Amino acid sequence: MSVDRNVVPAEMRGMVLCGDRLSLDRLPVPQPMTGQVLAKVRAAGICGSDLHFAQHADYVRSLPHDEIGVLANADHRRGVVMGHEFAAEIAGSPGAARGWRPGTRVVSVPAVRAAVDGGTAEMIGYSNTYPRAFAEYIVMTEATLLRVPDHVSDEMAAMVEPCAVGLHAVRAASVGPNDRALIMGAGPIGLMTLLWLKQAGAADIAVSDPAGERRSLAAQLGATRTFDPRDEPVAAAHDVVFDCVGVRGTLQEAIGRAAERGRIVVVGVCMTEDHLRPFAAINKELTVRFVVVYADDEFAEALDAIASGLIDPAPLLTRTISLDELPDAFASLREPSDCKVVVKFD
Amino acid sequence: MSVDRNVVPAEMRGMVLCGDRLSLDRLPVPQPMTGQVLAKVRAAGICGSDLHFAQHADYVRSLPHDEIGVLANADHRRGVVMGHEFAAEIAGSPGAARGWRPGTRVVSVPAVRAAVDGGTAEMIGYSNTYPRAFAEYIVMTEATLLRVPDHVSDEMAAMVEPCAVGLHAVRAASVGPNDRALIMGAGPIGLMTLLWLKQAGAADIAVSDPAGERRSLAAQLGATRTFDPRDEPVAAAHDVVFDCVGVRGTLQEAIGRAAERGRIVVVGVCMTEDHLRPFAAINKELTVRFVVVYADDEFAEALDAIASGLIDPAPLLTRTISLDELPDAFASLREPSDCKVVVKFD
Repeated sequence: MSVDRNVVPAEMRGMVLCGDRLSLDRLPVPQPMTGQVLAKVRAAGICGSDLHFAQHADYVRSLPHDEIGVLANADHRRGVVMGHEFAAEIAGSPGAARGWRPGTRVVSVPAVRAAVDGGTAEMIGYSNTYPRAFAEYIVMTEATLLRVPDHVSDEMAAMVEPCAVGLHAVRAASVGPNDRALIMGAGPIGLMTLLWLKQAGAADIAVSDPAGERRSLAAQLGATRTFDPRDEPVAAAHDVVFDCVGVRGTLQEAIGRAAERGRIVVVGVCMTEDHLRPFAAINKELTVRFVVVYADDEFAEALDAIASGLIDPAPLLTRTISLDELPDAFASLREPSDCKVVVKFD
Repeated sequence: MSVDRNVVPAEMRGMVLCGDRLSLDRLPVPQPMTGQVLAKVRAAGICGSDLHFAQHADYVRSLPHDEIGVLANADHRRGVVMGHEFAAEIAGSPGAARGWRPGTRVVSVPAVRAAVDGGTAEMIGYSNTYPRAFAEYIVMTEATLLRVPDHVSDEMAAMVEPCAVGLHAVRAASVGPNDRALIMGAGPIGLMTLLWLKQAGAADIAVSDPAGERRSLAAQLGATRTFDPRDEPVAAAHDVVFDCVGVRGTLQEAIGRAAERGRIVVVGVCMTEDHLRPFAAINKELTVRFVVVYADDEFAEALDAIASGLIDPAPLLTRTISLDELPDAFASLREPSDCKVVVKFD
């Protein structure tokens, strides 16, 4: 079905997480308030955090309030439409932004404010108030809109967000040219980290992943060496380790693989209890940086990097699906051979 | 028994950890090699790590070799004489150092080298080769000896080592004047950290400890506020948190009490498996620095600070005991109301 850009329907389709169930439902199209715009989603990427949240939302809700952070407004029992990696186009409707022509393609940091005058920001994709990019229409904050250049495809624009995560992670690690780096996990975040590490001048970048397809992708994108973590004994060999997996046990593996005085950057969002041996980290005087949020200017820098060709995330996109295929894709991505999967809207 | 400084006996008394048993035994006096000196111990402090090691040595031995770090040479099944916080005097004997007169009081970083020409350093206090300061005589490395000024007592000189730990921890945290600091644990390391934090210009220093006596000591030494962690809900209120406890669960408590973008410095040496909720640390983008070893110049700076009166650790010394009382003191310190306990030798 093709949509007349000047006519916004009252209802839309979207994938709703409710309890532990994912289903395609009909939802009301959200209404933008002052300082917000309505946009039609063109492409939306599946993030590892979406998979983790769909699986571990009960755990997240059980945490003390101030530990939940950006997910505090996402009660999965009341229904959440996820999707925070997206490209959209301004929808022509009453309430559309001044100065933004309908059809203009945009991206923005995945936060939305209730009002221009300092309302609380909610994380796009993890909110009961705002349905997000796994639905046909979204509300965006006008102040953070960035125009997508014409030569950048919808799919690539939807990858600006994970690209910003990789940039932020590499900045957090302050990697020097002599550092022996290890990236654990060759999913989209691990590979974005790899691309930025190369830009940062790192000469020695190992990448570990249990999936052969992902290791091949990492090699193709410039990893010095790839290995299956199940085959390689844990040894203190890396000055900086990026945990781009974020499941139970990966932090301890990072501790084990970090060299004395090494740094660990935790990028993967672990949504379970975890265990570790502090003694190992103490003995090696490790520094562990947990990261999650890039700055607005890092997001803009990621868009520029993709637009200029400095960072080319095209090889990371292994599959494009329709909204109808989304629930099944969630299930299949738990045993990943895919890398980035993007939902393409009509 | 008083010892003629020019006569070194063949045997000495010391407390040996063997398996999980602490006992006072007779041991051969160690023989210094080239570049080493023999010294008679005058005072030796009990460190929290000694207590942890006596309790958890089986766990430590079960760790992968490169995680054991400085404890790799301490097999408790073969017998270890602990004690790495000490003041000693040069013993007059064949093998005594050139240029160091018998009777000169000295301290040094607790590492000993097998030879001047780059032998491997072993951690004093955690070695099967070198009996340490919970015995009457020790071997020290001549190159790292520092003379103790006459006005500094043996007990205060034995506290240079934990003083260096506090200095190193505060340096690792890069504390600014506006930071709201929290020190978890008002034992010797927590209080040394407090003294150095005050020197660093921190204005807001909270100290938590379950023991009322220790909280009083912290207040007396300048804590802005003290509290019992069992009474105070965990809230994200501190820009920098020092975990000076290091038992199961304290790292997660530090994560909970750290504010957004806060830093945690892990100073207490946890010798068990631990658990944590990475999600909380990720959401707040925390940085966790694990520290254990100060630099040689930080050790020297700690001695100077005590000698000049910049740091006065006297209030931390709550008890002086004899070597005979040492095994019992280990048992009683597990429920601490004491702070620093120092063994004073004849």
